[in-house]
Amino acid sequence: MKLFNKAVIVGTGLIGGSIALGLKKKALAGEVIGISRSQKTLSLAKKRKAIDKGSLDLHIAKGADLLIFATPPSTVLKLAPAIAKIISRDCIVSDASSTKEEIVRKLEKIFKRFVGAHPLAGSEKQGIKHACAGIFKGSLCILTPTPNTDQGAIKKIKSLWLSLGSRVAFLSPAKHDRALSLVSHLPHVTAFATIGTIPVDNLKFAASGLRDSTRLASSDSRLWADILLSNKKNILKDISSFGNNLARIKSAIKRNDVKSLARILQAAKHKREILG
Amino acid sequence: MKLFNKAVIVGTGLIGGSIALGLKKKALAGEVIGISRSQKTLSLAKKRKAIDKGSLDLHIAKGADLLIFATPPSTVLKLAPAIAKIISRDCIVSDASSTKEEIVRKLEKIFKRFVGAHPLAGSEKQGIKHACAGIFKGSLCILTPTPNTDQGAIKKIKSLWLSLGSRVAFLSPAKHDRALSLVSHLPHVTAFATIGTIPVDNLKFAASGLRDSTRLASSDSRLWADILLSNKKNILKDISSFGNNLARIKSAIKRNDVKSLARILQAAKHKREILG
Repeated sequence: MKLFNKAVIVGTGLIGGSIALGLKKKALAGEVIGISRSQKTLSLAKKRKAIDKGSLDLHIAKGADLLIFATPPSTVLKLAPAIAKIISRDCIVSDASSTKEEIVRKLEKIFKRFVGAHPLAGSEKQGIKHACAGIFKGSLCILTPTPNTDQGAIKKIKSLWLSLGSRVAFLSPAKHDRALSLVSHLPHVTAFATIGTIPVDNLKFAASGLRDSTRLASSDSRLWADILLSNKKNILKDISSFGNNLARIKSAIKRNDVKSLARILQAAKHKREILG
Repeated sequence: MKLFNKAVIVGTGLIGGSIALGLKKKALAGEVIGISRSQKTLSLAKKRKAIDKGSLDLHIAKGADLLIFATPPSTVLKLAPAIAKIISRDCIVSDASSTKEEIVRKLEKIFKRFVGAHPLAGSEKQGIKHACAGIFKGSLCILTPTPNTDQGAIKKIKSLWLSLGSRVAFLSPAKHDRALSLVSHLPHVTAFATIGTIPVDNLKFAASGLRDSTRLASSDSRLWADILLSNKKNILKDISSFGNNLARIKSAIKRNDVKSLARILQAAKHKREILG
């Protein structure tokens, strides 16, 4: 079902490339255009039939009725004013950023029809070569409209994500950033800090437990530096709560308090079981 | 290839049950006996053909030429003196405990032919119902003999683990506990602390990243309290190093220092890539 005539994806990496592939596969757009800062990425995106055309130049976005930013948050903020000069006021604009508060606040001032979106999909892998239309299937896409958001644009962006196979939930940008700091940003931080603590010559004794628990530390480090800074207030708070939790475990070990220690671990285990 | 006449497994849970299944499957022992504090566990072990006979009474170990402790470390220490009065001085004794220093120091005083062993296998699942002879295939089993260890016993325990499909490595008990604190005990602690930090009503926004990174927090909380206390010196040190690492990340976020932050994350990512 065609939802858009000319869809432009800014940033054709893992997520942008997967959205592009989904648009093509489900024929959701008349044409799909990719914008990247790398010609190599665009060539591969074209070869993989994720896009019909690609360009390093933002002006290719002219005439779009859908434009999705799929770059790190700081790049979204940097490119938005230039994009606004090129596309029509009626173009629906969305994104796929992992943080929403700052982006929604700024982009809804720049674009008339902006809808914040965050597909909770993807993996620690990077780049168009790992893109796949199927990564959204069964995943959750959180939309973060505000009282200012254009209702027609919300409806179309919702249809888009349902068509890509996602479930769709709505949260305010602030609530989104609060929740994602806990369920995504904090585990990234602890994964990076855990593997960072282990001297290289001990890694040969690692079993699957370490591999799984630090998989998130394979994520793009520049992107994640960007995400953490763009959710500074929440993640600093959650790192502190985590630190308090860790201190309780440490203190129980120091005191040889097997009962308290088992109780803390058991409470954590109970929560983990909710995830299945 | 029969290595033993009468093999006794003390603790027929996930690991003990899997060893028993492997002994039977590869016909490594004339008979396999299980000891448990639960009749239900023994019945299931027998039904699954992991053991020929089972008992709640340690005296069934009489006449064994192999006895393996597969219980939490504190239970090994508690049962060892009683077992020593039942089995012959020539019986080869081993274990599967996650920590080795204290156990090896004490058990080599109690048993003439003790060889410390730690199969780096298993999962967060528990109990005989999840036991499987295949869990050791391709995994690493670390043996921790000392200058006092009987050479014939080392050879037989090594053959046993190779026959069960493991690779075998040798480390001193102290080096084992140092390395395992880093590659196994620390990630358990951070997994428990991470999921413990997240309020339950946020878990519905969790994606596969949180699920994988906290899978270790599904582990048996009583067993892990025991393991952490039995490796107290090392794990307290590693929690502190981890805390320093976390503080560096926190400080870079506080200062909005994207370059330092990306550098810290990138160094962690490099190490993670070594794990594959």
